[in-house]
Amino acid sequence: MRKINDIQKSYIAGFLDGDGSVYIRLKKNETYKYGYQVAPYVILYQKETYIDFLKNIRDLLGIGYIRSRKDGVSEYIIGDEKSLIDFSREIAPFSKLKKQQLRLLSSVIKLKSKTKNAKDFIALCQKIDRFKELNYSKKRTQDSKEVSKYLISKNLLTP
Amino acid sequence: MRKINDIQKSYIAGFLDGDGSVYIRLKKNETYKYGYQVAPYVILYQKETYIDFLKNIRDLLGIGYIRSRKDGVSEYIIGDEKSLIDFSREIAPFSKLKKQQLRLLSSVIKLKSKTKNAKDFIALCQKIDRFKELNYSKKRTQDSKEVSKYLISKNLLTP
Repeated sequence: MRKINDIQKSYIAGFLDGDGSVYIRLKKNETYKYGYQVAPYVILYQKETYIDFLKNIRDLLGIGYIRSRKDGVSEYIIGDEKSLIDFSREIAPFSKLKKQQLRLLSSVIKLKSKTKNAKDFIALCQKIDRFKELNYSKKRTQDSKEVSKYLISKNLLTP
Repeated sequence: MRKINDIQKSYIAGFLDGDGSVYIRLKKNETYKYGYQVAPYVILYQKETYIDFLKNIRDLLGIGYIRSRKDGVSEYIIGDEKSLIDFSREIAPFSKLKKQQLRLLSSVIKLKSKTKNAKDFIALCQKIDRFKELNYSKKRTQDSKEVSKYLISKNLLTP
C-alpha cells in the first residue's frame, strides 16, 4: 500500500464507516485442505456514476481492484491478505464504526498462517464467526459449526 | 458550529460522501410569500444500531438533531441555515463527491436572503434545480417550473 497522510486516512475511514464493509467469508471449496476457503474483504461501494472516484481511491492506495455490479453499484475490493493487513493498520486508528472489524480482520489473517491442523482451523473459524456480531449481520452464512460438521464427516476432526 | 480539526473534518467529509445527502427541497406551503418553502438539508444516515455514533458527531459539531425513522435508519439532520453555511465552509474543502453540492447549498442560502420579488425567487429556484443534476436524482420533485406556474396563477409573476 502507498504512503498516505492522516487527512487521507481519516477521509477513507469516514467513507468506509459510511458505506463500506469489512468481513471474512468462509467459502465451501473442497480443493482446500479443510474444505473451506477463508476469504477476507474490505469493500467500498458507490453508484456506477462515481466509479472514477473509487478508481482514484484505488490509485491513491495502490491496492485492490474495481468491479461493476449489474445493479448499477461499483465496488472497490481489497481481498489480498498483505494489502488488508496494511489497510487495517493504517485505517483502523481513524475508523469509528469499523475499528474492531479491521483489527479482527488482521488478527484472523495472521492466525491463519499459523494453522497446523483441523482443530486450529476450527478455532480460526470461531474467530471469523465474530464478524457476524460486529456487523449485526443476520445473513445465513457458513460458520464454524458448519465447518466442524464437515471436518467430522471427513474424519479430519473428532467430535 | 464547534471548532474541529482537519482530521475530524476529513472524516466527516468521507462519511458524508459515503452515506450522506446534501440538497434543498422546495416545499409547497401557502403560508410563505411565494407559496413555497426553501428547505436546505445535510443528512447523515446510519442504521439505528449506530445511533450513538450519530449523536457523537452531532455533539462534536454542536449543530443539528437526530431523528429515528420507522424503517430502522437513524438520521443526523442539519437544516438550520447558519449551521449549514458553517458546515459547508468547513467540510467542502475535504469532500470529494459533494463539494459542489455543499457550495451550491451555501450560495442558495446566501442568495435567498436577498430575494426581493417573485422574479428573484424564480432565479433562486432555478439554482435549486441544479441539485437534481448534481445528485443524479430522478425523483419527481417541486422545481422552478412548478413554482413559475404557481406564481403566474396567483398573478405574482408575468409569463
